[in-house]
Amino acid sequence: MAANALHIVIIGAGNVASHLCRAFDDSEHKIVQLYNRSEKGKELANEYGISFTTNINDLVKADIYLVAIPDDAVSSFANKFPYKQSLIAHTSGSVSIEALNEASNRTGVFYPLQTFTKNKLVDFKTIPICIEAKSDEDEKTLYKLGIEISSIVKRIDSEKRKLAHVAAVFANNFSNHMYEIAYSFLMKNNLPFDLIQPLIKETADKVQHETPYDAQTGPAKRGDNKTIEAHLELLKNKEYQEIYKLVSESIKNTHGG
Amino acid sequence: MAANALHIVIIGAGNVASHLCRAFDDSEHKIVQLYNRSEKGKELANEYGISFTTNINDLVKADIYLVAIPDDAVSSFANKFPYKQSLIAHTSGSVSIEALNEASNRTGVFYPLQTFTKNKLVDFKTIPICIEAKSDEDEKTLYKLGIEISSIVKRIDSEKRKLAHVAAVFANNFSNHMYEIAYSFLMKNNLPFDLIQPLIKETADKVQHETPYDAQTGPAKRGDNKTIEAHLELLKNKEYQEIYKLVSESIKNTHGG
Repeated sequence: MAANALHIVIIGAGNVASHLCRAFDDSEHKIVQLYNRSEKGKELANEYGISFTTNINDLVKADIYLVAIPDDAVSSFANKFPYKQSLIAHTSGSVSIEALNEASNRTGVFYPLQTFTKNKLVDFKTIPICIEAKSDEDEKTLYKLGIEISSIVKRIDSEKRKLAHVAAVFANNFSNHMYEIAYSFLMKNNLPFDLIQPLIKETADKVQHETPYDAQTGPAKRGDNKTIEAHLELLKNKEYQEIYKLVSESIKNTHGG
Repeated sequence: MAANALHIVIIGAGNVASHLCRAFDDSEHKIVQLYNRSEKGKELANEYGISFTTNINDLVKADIYLVAIPDDAVSSFANKFPYKQSLIAHTSGSVSIEALNEASNRTGVFYPLQTFTKNKLVDFKTIPICIEAKSDEDEKTLYKLGIEISSIVKRIDSEKRKLAHVAAVFANNFSNHMYEIAYSFLMKNNLPFDLIQPLIKETADKVQHETPYDAQTGPAKRGDNKTIEAHLELLKNKEYQEIYKLVSESIKNTHGG
């Protein structure tokens, strides 16, 4: 371990916590403890040889506490946090830095802008990490922490981070829901999902190199109302029809149709 | 060239035509001619050493004619097609096989289910090709053609193909529009698109191995109305707000929220 290694305590045992454990396991920094209020994190801690506790009074001293718990639990954890002079940062896109005010006078945010699933590995190096801190020194520490596991660390304040999170909801949750509708429509018609899996992958690959505007194709972009009408009829499901109509209108507006 | 190589004529010079030229260039089959009504395809034909014509009367005899032109041009091309005993197949997702009735008594469909961009290479091997033909023998020919360039060739009739195309519109056009909204929202707020590019890629990667249902995350899935309200306020744009609301409601309905 390098001399300037940071000692980290992870709070939480969900997807973000477990991906952070993996990422820092390969780094020069060291996770010295995992805390979770239930036994749920025990296995995770064992996997990486990290000491584990469910007792907040057993929290050890560390350079930084990374809070990876549900958004609505951040404030109440802050109230219980015992080290009022230590750097504590949460990992959420939509929670303000102020939510940690009761925890310490040294607060920050360390938000990896990615969607994490329990059993799917991600390459942390390519994940943008948005950092924010109350003091310059703490910001430097967060930067040092981030740059060790990712090649993209950006200083983004709470207001901007919330805006980025809105964009992330469209890019992730909403595009995934478009897949979900496609999936259930295929299933209903006895067609396999693997028919469109390569299409989904290519759709996302395209916008790594060109703008979504340039990448757009399809009946709405072409203003092909005949196909749009035929699709609406085939859909049958009212909710899906409404989404089809609204999104098609929006595509037409975007592309001047 | 193998003894059972098929001779192909490509009709059209757009994205699908150019990707077919590339795919068959590496295959045991041979494109013997490219036809386009304008000079547009000349460069493409030259690139692959294929003879080119804009004159329908100069069409050469071949084993199969692959029609890769805009949907609404298929029928009028069919009327002009001179070889009434030859196999002709179009490459469209939403056009019925019947659109070729005037062309020949041997018709088919050869639909690669993918989104093509002019200058972006795709791995044809992973692209599902949906085939359909009026006769078993022609279906065998289309299968032989497809399996040479892709590892996924499926027999799907016109009705099912139209349904698959509806799913493709959600999976491709609509998810891309979600990226587009995210993009324009980020730009408007002076945030870079590369902040969410890795997220977009991961969102699509996830559903290669799990269902979109299992992959879903976010405020709507959690029923987190506080975040939803905050996002709606940040969006400002009325059209985006409407889409946010409708898609969030649909996610809630899907996940029993």
